[in-house]
Amino acid sequence: MRFAAAFACLGALLLLASCEPPALEEPDSEFDPQTVAAAVLDVLDIQVEAWNDGDIDGFMAGYLRSEELRFTSGGEVRYGWRRTRQRYHERYPDRAAMGTLAFEDLDVRVLSGHAALVFGRFRLTRESDEPTGLFTLLLEQHGDRWFIVADHTSQ
Amino acid sequence: MRFAAAFACLGALLLLASCEPPALEEPDSEFDPQTVAAAVLDVLDIQVEAWNDGDIDGFMAGYLRSEELRFTSGGEVRYGWRRTRQRYHERYPDRAAMGTLAFEDLDVRVLSGHAALVFGRFRLTRESDEPTGLFTLLLEQHGDRWFIVADHTSQ
Repeated sequence: MRFAAAFACLGALLLLASCEPPALEEPDSEFDPQTVAAAVLDVLDIQVEAWNDGDIDGFMAGYLRSEELRFTSGGEVRYGWRRTRQRYHERYPDRAAMGTLAFEDLDVRVLSGHAALVFGRFRLTRESDEPTGLFTLLLEQHGDRWFIVADHTSQ
Repeated sequence: MRFAAAFACLGALLLLASCEPPALEEPDSEFDPQTVAAAVLDVLDIQVEAWNDGDIDGFMAGYLRSEELRFTSGGEVRYGWRRTRQRYHERYPDRAAMGTLAFEDLDVRVLSGHAALVFGRFRLTRESDEPTGLFTLLLEQHGDRWFIVADHTSQ
């Protein structure tokens, strides 16, 4: 029995040594910041492209289509995707008002596998002026896509 | 030997059955959002208290003492704790300029065990006016404390 017990211990130890850690349930623990940053920047690239095609609804696809979306511009805050879209359509009724959009000095701070903060400057080049301002965006992953869930812009 | 092998298997199985998952290295996978939210709100409470004691440096203790701190107010962005502190001292040189600070409508969005976004409104009650504005703050845990690492304020 002594031999058997020793053998059991050896077998158990060998098995324990090969005991693999269980798969982590929280995907956050295994995210690649560069992949997150690239996904987030893709959203903004698509927005700029849509804007410069005169396509506000294409631009709006970067925002989460939810009542929870928070859009802060100057001293005003709006909630909801539809209200945000309405503001863009009212404020930029035609191609001339839209001008050409560029995002500058983008800084992406990856906060988890599902959240990132983007800070940057927007610049609209128009016939008669060149409005510019700073923005802080929170993007979150919903399903396999990334969306802006909070936007704080100041001019 | 057959008996010994069977015994080893049994022993190994029993040990395997009790094989505990290893401690997760990423604390994010086990955080309590309410604990995070409370810690974050504590930072803001302490700031309000310091401000209303006329103590700008106490207020500044809520900001990460780092060159990476980003402070955006209106169309301007400043980097660094010292520059941010300097702005506060210049803008609020005395007790009358500081007035009484209140934070309103605070919304805390916990993003991970180490990061949270706070949105809200500030209001300064002063002798002759009542400036107000909206802010978006990113707070992160450094060591066992929480600090504002990015502030975007607009009036």
